[in-house]
Amino acid sequence: MRFSPLIEQLMEAFRVLPGVGPKTAQRMAMHLLERERPGGKRLAAIIEQAIDEVGYCQRCRTLTEASVCALCESPRRDDTLLCVVESPADQLAIEEAGGFSGRYFVLHGHLSPLDGVGPDALGLDLLEARVAEGNIQEIVLATNPTVEGEATAHYIASQLAAYGVTFSRLAYGVPMGGELEYVDGGTLSRAFNGRLPFTSD
Amino acid sequence: MRFSPLIEQLMEAFRVLPGVGPKTAQRMAMHLLERERPGGKRLAAIIEQAIDEVGYCQRCRTLTEASVCALCESPRRDDTLLCVVESPADQLAIEEAGGFSGRYFVLHGHLSPLDGVGPDALGLDLLEARVAEGNIQEIVLATNPTVEGEATAHYIASQLAAYGVTFSRLAYGVPMGGELEYVDGGTLSRAFNGRLPFTSD
Ligand SMILES: [Zn+2]
Ligand SMILES: [Zn+2]
Repeated sequence: MRFSPLIEQLMEAFRVLPGVGPKTAQRMAMHLLERERPGGKRLAAIIEQAIDEVGYCQRCRTLTEASVCALCESPRRDDTLLCVVESPADQLAIEEAGGFSGRYFVLHGHLSPLDGVGPDALGLDLLEARVAEGNIQEIVLATNPTVEGEATAHYIASQLAAYGVTFSRLAYGVPMGGELEYVDGGTLSRAFNGRLPFTSD
Repeated sequence: MRFSPLIEQLMEAFRVLPGVGPKTAQRMAMHLLERERPGGKRLAAIIEQAIDEVGYCQRCRTLTEASVCALCESPRRDDTLLCVVESPADQLAIEEAGGFSGRYFVLHGHLSPLDGVGPDALGLDLLEARVAEGNIQEIVLATNPTVEGEATAHYIASQLAAYGVTFSRLAYGVPMGGELEYVDGGTLSRAFNGRLPFTSD
């Protein structure tokens, strides 16, 4: 025996979520059907709506349903500082750590030629246009401390070398091979303050 | 900074799922929006459809989109044996353990007067009608080995005492205070074979 076909399909569909194996998918399906039908309906509707309406901020490429995100719209941020991150989750981690008052740019990934992820997919033309506006004096290349994150930071620094901006990279406290999203706020904050000059060589 | 309002609503909606806290909800929302939009659309559609279409089997009350479930329809099950369980997940665990060839009845809970869960909510009138048909000779009361599960088993045995059926209850191997859904198959199978007569006293 298995569950009915529709319930099996529901369990299979939950596997799309990160960290959800067969047993967790079963618990989720049973929980919604047995005890949380109104909450399940709300979840379905908001997934649908978010996928339809959430896109990229036209200025920084973070995820938002607005054309320009609240942080880009804010008059209280320093336009001379730009922090480049791989994901909105990394951006949130840095904001929650506190201490950074500039703007952001979100790549949504890192360069990965074998997977077909090149400069276009990371919006590097938009980043260059932003730098060409002339306000930015320092770019913090806060890509992940992984091989791909380092390579991406070097690529960006090379690409933008002609604009005369200073590049920096997060310093101590960021574990090699780790992911920014999971670094605690104190470590991240110290790494920001200890950031180092960065060259593309 | 937080995420945009719609993304925050999406994260909040994921909290309806069992075991999903704020950090997991954030990972799920980011994963769907960054990497799994088609899978997310499928998930939303199937949650919607399952909640609309999945109801109770008219005969055994298990969850199914059919009016009568496949197990109730099967000609290969023993009509003289009926196993009463608290949930479809418990039913599946017993089926996967193997060794039981009878039919099922699903309560969807246990008696809990303080929460307003009485005999009606558990479908005990339907269970009595089923026993009154006259085929059933033994009822295995496989409610959870908890205080509430025991009380529910006693209540059912009292209610149906006049019909002259034998009652049994799962025997050794079922840990006190535990939940059937998480008992391994071997233990569950042995407990079935070692089931004991049960009276309502
Ligand atoms: Zn923005
Ligand atoms: Zn049935």
